[in-house]
Amino acid sequence: SFNSSHARKIKPDKPCKHLTVYYHDILFNGTNKANATSAAAANPTQLGNTNFGMVVVFDDPITKDQHLLSTPIARAQGFYFYDMKTSYNAWFAYTLIFNSTEHKGTINIMGADMMGETTRDLSVVGGTGDFFMARGIATFRTDTFEGTAYFRLQMDIKLYECY
Amino acid sequence: SFNSSHARKIKPDKPCKHLTVYYHDILFNGTNKANATSAAAANPTQLGNTNFGMVVVFDDPITKDQHLLSTPIARAQGFYFYDMKTSYNAWFAYTLIFNSTEHKGTINIMGADMMGETTRDLSVVGGTGDFFMARGIATFRTDTFEGTAYFRLQMDIKLYECY
Amino acid sequence: SFNSSHARKIKPDKPCKHLTVYYHDILFNGTNKANATSAAAANPTQLGNTNFGMVVVFDDPITKDQHLLSTPIARAQGFYFYDMKTSYNAWFAYTLIFNSTEHKGTINIMGADMMGETTRDLSVVGGTGDFFMARGIATFRTDTFEGTAYFRLQMDIKLYECY
Repeated sequence: SFNSSHARKIKPDKPCKHLTVYYHDILFNGTNKANATSAAAANPTQLGNTNFGMVVVFDDPITKDQHLLSTPIARAQGFYFYDMKTSYNAWFAYTLIFNSTEHKGTINIMGADMMGETTRDLSVVGGTGDFFMARGIATFRTDTFEGTAYFRLQMDIKLYECY
Repeated sequence: SFNSSHARKIKPDKPCKHLTVYYHDILFNGTNKANATSAAAANPTQLGNTNFGMVVVFDDPITKDQHLLSTPIARAQGFYFYDMKTSYNAWFAYTLIFNSTEHKGTINIMGADMMGETTRDLSVVGGTGDFFMARGIATFRTDTFEGTAYFRLQMDIKLYECY
Repeated sequence: SFNSSHARKIKPDKPCKHLTVYYHDILFNGTNKANATSAAAANPTQLGNTNFGMVVVFDDPITKDQHLLSTPIARAQGFYFYDMKTSYNAWFAYTLIFNSTEHKGTINIMGADMMGETTRDLSVVGGTGDFFMARGIATFRTDTFEGTAYFRLQMDIKLYECY
């Protein structure tokens, strides 16, 4: 009988499913309604000057390559907020929503986006549809960061529990 | 030895625990303090006119049947926000809190509520007490939607990991 | 073959990893910029007078003992909000970030903080680095609560899935 409170073996370099995608975020600035994909639900507080407390809700396109205008293969819906008073640093919770012939279903992700690090790992905490009950790691890498106006993240999604 | 990075078998129609409940949300409008169960922590942004960026915190009754005034069997505490600029669409993270002779414990849920779909699946990402370490799927179905004033969701909770 | 939709055995008193830490939160009040570790992204609503709807973003020190000024062993980054109209009650989602010789990696946690209970259990929904793919329970106990100005929680982190 299997006791999952004991150590199990999963090799981080052997995911059962692996997707590399790009996330594009264009913040609403009051005049870019047609292009904006996210908006500040709460403005930055006065604690420091790196947007501490700014909460951004997004419905962002996900593409296979780096091009903003490529046909999206998914949407990313969720939110992030800035949470450091001395530098830009964020926290994310969101859902990747796939609805194509290739993939149907969702992947739910949360964790810290330590923007100062080259790569940072968040948790894939669940999935539905083609990703039923999935768990894993989502590795963020900043691909470009033009202040809050536009940024692009590479998201490397590695699932270690597949059903 | 079991390597969980390989595919495992779970049948979506064979949960180890199954609960069907109803969630009732009455948004505070400034004058319904006695009845309101939720309130807007952040107002809608100007990005579209379907409440994009509106963040709602809730402490909502959960009942076994569809009647708002039935004795609650649990509370749902958490938040949702609207996140689409062309139609109503939401994202939820919350805890179902049971404290009765039948069930004691919590179930933690997050995911996208694609309100345009008849049913949509969110992830049960954890549980405590009677639901210790649970995982599964929460399927939402809109039972009634009277704008933001009152809406009722059927939540079909299927757990596939029970301990 | 293992069917995880059947009941598995994990003993709540036999975690595979166990950490007891302290969380210190000092809310920004407009004048304590140097010491503040959190700030209100959204102010309380008018629904009751126990801060319903107040959303707080934090970057809080985590220490091994109860002393605020001990060298932190981790940061807790995330948010909480108050969600009850008749008493103080909260909901948390956050990441514990370890970056020391002892531990490198993150632990992701979410759940209800029923402040009226002596202890309350939240879910550890994932981890990265040294805590790769972890799951478990985080038990909160209020150690001191000086209104919103300063509070300290004991967090007892028990992991039941270790890799």
